[in-house]
Amino acid sequence: MAGVVVQRVERAELSVIDELAEYGVATVHEAQGRTGLLAASMRPIYPRARIAGSALTISAPPGDNWMIHVAIEQLQAGDILVLAPTSPCTDGYFGDLLATSAMARGCRGLVIDAGVRDVRDLTEMGFPVWSKAVFAQGTVKATLGSVNVPVVCANALINPGDVIVADDDGVCVVERARAAEVAQKSRERAANEESKRKRLADGELGLDIYGMRPKLEAMGLKYV
Amino acid sequence: MAGVVVQRVERAELSVIDELAEYGVATVHEAQGRTGLLAASMRPIYPRARIAGSALTISAPPGDNWMIHVAIEQLQAGDILVLAPTSPCTDGYFGDLLATSAMARGCRGLVIDAGVRDVRDLTEMGFPVWSKAVFAQGTVKATLGSVNVPVVCANALINPGDVIVADDDGVCVVERARAAEVAQKSRERAANEESKRKRLADGELGLDIYGMRPKLEAMGLKYV
Amino acid sequence: MAGVVVQRVERAELSVIDELAEYGVATVHEAQGRTGLLAASMRPIYPRARIAGSALTISAPPGDNWMIHVAIEQLQAGDILVLAPTSPCTDGYFGDLLATSAMARGCRGLVIDAGVRDVRDLTEMGFPVWSKAVFAQGTVKATLGSVNVPVVCANALINPGDVIVADDDGVCVVERARAAEVAQKSRERAANEESKRKRLADGELGLDIYGMRPKLEAMGLKYV
Amino acid sequence: MAGVVVQRVERAELSVIDELAEYGVATVHEAQGRTGLLAASMRPIYPRARIAGSALTISAPPGDNWMIHVAIEQLQAGDILVLAPTSPCTDGYFGDLLATSAMARGCRGLVIDAGVRDVRDLTEMGFPVWSKAVFAQGTVKATLGSVNVPVVCANALINPGDVIVADDDGVCVVERARAAEVAQKSRERAANEESKRKRLADGELGLDIYGMRPKLEAMGLKYV
Amino acid sequence: MAGVVVQRVERAELSVIDELAEYGVATVHEAQGRTGLLAASMRPIYPRARIAGSALTISAPPGDNWMIHVAIEQLQAGDILVLAPTSPCTDGYFGDLLATSAMARGCRGLVIDAGVRDVRDLTEMGFPVWSKAVFAQGTVKATLGSVNVPVVCANALINPGDVIVADDDGVCVVERARAAEVAQKSRERAANEESKRKRLADGELGLDIYGMRPKLEAMGLKYV
Amino acid sequence: MAGVVVQRVERAELSVIDELAEYGVATVHEAQGRTGLLAASMRPIYPRARIAGSALTISAPPGDNWMIHVAIEQLQAGDILVLAPTSPCTDGYFGDLLATSAMARGCRGLVIDAGVRDVRDLTEMGFPVWSKAVFAQGTVKATLGSVNVPVVCANALINPGDVIVADDDGVCVVERARAAEVAQKSRERAANEESKRKRLADGELGLDIYGMRPKLEAMGLKYV
Repeated sequence: MAGVVVQRVERAELSVIDELAEYGVATVHEAQGRTGLLAASMRPIYPRARIAGSALTISAPPGDNWMIHVAIEQLQAGDILVLAPTSPCTDGYFGDLLATSAMARGCRGLVIDAGVRDVRDLTEMGFPVWSKAVFAQGTVKATLGSVNVPVVCANALINPGDVIVADDDGVCVVERARAAEVAQKSRERAANEESKRKRLADGELGLDIYGMRPKLEAMGLKYV
Repeated sequence: MAGVVVQRVERAELSVIDELAEYGVATVHEAQGRTGLLAASMRPIYPRARIAGSALTISAPPGDNWMIHVAIEQLQAGDILVLAPTSPCTDGYFGDLLATSAMARGCRGLVIDAGVRDVRDLTEMGFPVWSKAVFAQGTVKATLGSVNVPVVCANALINPGDVIVADDDGVCVVERARAAEVAQKSRERAANEESKRKRLADGELGLDIYGMRPKLEAMGLKYV
Repeated sequence: MAGVVVQRVERAELSVIDELAEYGVATVHEAQGRTGLLAASMRPIYPRARIAGSALTISAPPGDNWMIHVAIEQLQAGDILVLAPTSPCTDGYFGDLLATSAMARGCRGLVIDAGVRDVRDLTEMGFPVWSKAVFAQGTVKATLGSVNVPVVCANALINPGDVIVADDDGVCVVERARAAEVAQKSRERAANEESKRKRLADGELGLDIYGMRPKLEAMGLKYV
Repeated sequence: MAGVVVQRVERAELSVIDELAEYGVATVHEAQGRTGLLAASMRPIYPRARIAGSALTISAPPGDNWMIHVAIEQLQAGDILVLAPTSPCTDGYFGDLLATSAMARGCRGLVIDAGVRDVRDLTEMGFPVWSKAVFAQGTVKATLGSVNVPVVCANALINPGDVIVADDDGVCVVERARAAEVAQKSRERAANEESKRKRLADGELGLDIYGMRPKLEAMGLKYV
Repeated sequence: MAGVVVQRVERAELSVIDELAEYGVATVHEAQGRTGLLAASMRPIYPRARIAGSALTISAPPGDNWMIHVAIEQLQAGDILVLAPTSPCTDGYFGDLLATSAMARGCRGLVIDAGVRDVRDLTEMGFPVWSKAVFAQGTVKATLGSVNVPVVCANALINPGDVIVADDDGVCVVERARAAEVAQKSRERAANEESKRKRLADGELGLDIYGMRPKLEAMGLKYV
Repeated sequence: MAGVVVQRVERAELSVIDELAEYGVATVHEAQGRTGLLAASMRPIYPRARIAGSALTISAPPGDNWMIHVAIEQLQAGDILVLAPTSPCTDGYFGDLLATSAMARGCRGLVIDAGVRDVRDLTEMGFPVWSKAVFAQGTVKATLGSVNVPVVCANALINPGDVIVADDDGVCVVERARAAEVAQKSRERAANEESKRKRLADGELGLDIYGMRPKLEAMGLKYV
């Protein structure tokens, strides 16, 4: 099944994608009904990055980064590379040269269920990566994989063109067809949170704001 | 046994607590005879924070953060929230809204043997957290737990009102009744370390300062 | 076999060592044919450090840091302490007092397949450490180990006097006798990468620069 | 998206399924081009079981096994229950009562990316389970999930009606539509292996049987 | 605080303890309101053992098994040794010689949050152990710990004289004072399960036996 | 450095090797001064095997088992295959066909810091394996490694011809040149243990047999 590059991929609208980036992973994840999170093992190489983009997926053999070169040619501005190895691997698939090339094509970051390296350089370049490992062990260019096919990455199914949101809390995938709806729900949720934040900062209690006391009492909570 | 909120909890004196914060986890842990450390899996969400405070304990069901709302009402200035789930869990129990509410009540931080989220916001707010995971997966409000009961958190027994010390080296609990004594021993230890630091910085060797050479020789250490 | 301190150890030339530090772990590792990497579990306590030095090896019992005191006396300017426990251990073997002493002797850093503590102080002092854990649990001084014997540290064999290179990507060991040759190969590799970086930044593709298209086509890669 | 039970699911033919069970996971996995393996964390609760069946999938909330009761009503003879929690969880979702009920409906086993309990009873009943944990911590019945929707279980995408093969080597999923083809390829592979086994048992070398010597020589293998 | 042997410990009645053994960990854990489970990392060295006994607790330094010798003198028939190291450790604290000695005193097994060795011999002797590791690395006899003090073992608080129940599902602790009450609740639960088991084996559905259909319908479960 | 097959390897005498197998890993490990243990992650695929043999080492690329075919030609009766991958890997390098071939050459087992598969067949054939994973994911035959070179396997340095001892407690390596001496010390140790076992089975205490009481008293152990 390996050895295929799908060139035509529908993407969500950039305005929707950029709005999802503003809300961040925790809000988007809640807004779409608690689905789409990648495994907690996916961690950013440096703090404070928050991005969203269209998934350009890569299915790669363990320890072989050849398909990343192939994928870079398919990049459009606003894309995020998403690499899933076909077998567990912590090798460093990606470093500063590939990042230079990807950035030249408008790529916003990398999500990889494997390792990266040159992280000092990547940090200085401002190229954000979410990975399960940082490891200097390099890779070969010997075996074919595929580009823009559905992949299971860090336990989540990702289709090419799905929207990826990533920040310090992790990585979340939003189905392309639902992106506008999820942005709408995230917007409502964020507005609601903002008004709550003000009341909480004034010392009002969540117990009262959320009307929790009757239910807690009904369930038998005792104050002693 | 769940469903209890203990409202009256004795705390240690704030001056003692603040002094313990100065010494930090490694010194306090040594000073109380190498006891009280939480498991090494408890890591800070951002570096350089160092706090101490009175434990306000929460026993919470897995994936359910309802009791945090209940606990916030019980907070006094100088407290630290300590949450132990009743079953292993990496969900994100706590985010920026709860932190806003806790800070409004004088809370100094959170120690949680589970996950947190919104860590970019928490970092900007300067609300320190020690957790075993960062994960955007949220929680429900469906089941009762308890507040201010003894908990086992990251392999350590913590009673309400015990003193928590936390920094980059991890988290340590000091029994409330022993807090003043441990502060005293930490003070002596710190003073002793300061004088050693100067001699070591001058190039004097630990082998000589600590008088180790005769014992090493007696045990048969050979220089070749 | 424990209880031996080897005092005479050959080191590589400092000019060679310093040049290896410039290239960093990923480049050096590739340049010597993808050998010498320590396990990915070895992580820096703070980002952006990049050092190289001569390995001063320590074989230590679990939870016993006595031999570090012995090792510090053997330090020469440009050395890196390399500690391998004889059994898995996450205790904090090393803190700011030992770092003060080691720095006074010209030590450049520590590589330890166990834990460290006082990492806030170590960070402020600028003493870099690569470890598998940060943990405040201290150690005793009760049992002999050895200094400057071959050790297996984080899955790599390290001989006293071998060159250690460490940065954000991990830790790599270069055999002392091969250091000049590896520096030469790293230099060539770095020069080559620099010219590639410019072409990639201009948007040229790796597919073309590396002449990959014919081979991919021969292997059957299909664009659809 | 939760709260759906799909009742009409196409299954592969039982004769094909049973043949796949004979070949086992390693052979089936190779025969379908090295795809479909679940993560190595999925381990059998007792050794020597080898089964195949149609996937009846369950998407369940963490720590909530309500949907298993719903799923059991949908079981047909020859099915295997496949449960993926919507968040990482090691609770014991399944015990001997549920197994009694499932066996009464012709269920062949359970594949669960979470925990099970009562494993002594399950072993005596001969009900095979592949899970990532064994843990007595039970679950609640409070939240809806779904039955017979696509799930990502232990890093593999499984659609309802896909064929599951499981033995001591792990768990493999075969797409329903490809089951007959994969059985055919497995049959050829197994026959080929049988003839090789005889030659190898007679002491003939793989180097000669597989004609490896010229290629090894060409690649530069040196015998010293 | 180390260096104490408490000689007088109250135990629960043997008839109660033996009854708890019959029900096993999953039932006892539910019967006492889902509390008392040790971490899932505690695994039996051989399958099918099921025991209950009074906890004789040992707080031991990492890699030092001296206190086990001290503890064995305190054993009474029906006791279970429970060892918690004061720092994480996988060394093999316990082997066939210690088991011989413990069995001669009527000990029923060992629960240890560390490693054991000689497991082939222990299996042949029928001495059951629940541990987090099997490892041949031995220990020393150099430092004091304590016997019959409260310990935190695998994330659970265990007091001397508490009842330990252990089987293939893990290990559970029952507070001594609650043992008779928990046995009573376990008895009711087991009787109830037995009647359910018969109905389930006849093909009746949990959906009907537990009256789940109305609630599922109310929550919006859709059959499609 | 890859691509070398060393054909001439000195082995220890078979009578010495066979005697080491009798004593087992825990005794041999103690007898040689607590050195030589492989990491605790190395576990047997079935219980109760106990073997010793000469190490025939294999350095293999991740996910590539070609060198095992090359190694099998070098096997002599009494050898044990020892495979260390050059990068972390859990793929199933070895199955029943390779075992058939290895057994035909007199091989006694396999020690592999990676995965194996076909474990049901390997168990039925009685071919013992110690591995860090069981996983059906197969490997390719594309890249050269080396045979009979020094390897670091599961954190231990193993030279070709060293003696490997393996049982339920793990795996231990004995340097070839020390094999006879270690067998002698193991013999003494085993005899000593046998006499102790009798006294302990009669209820005598280790406290008395080993004369521990005065030292415990001197260290301040208090009985309360």
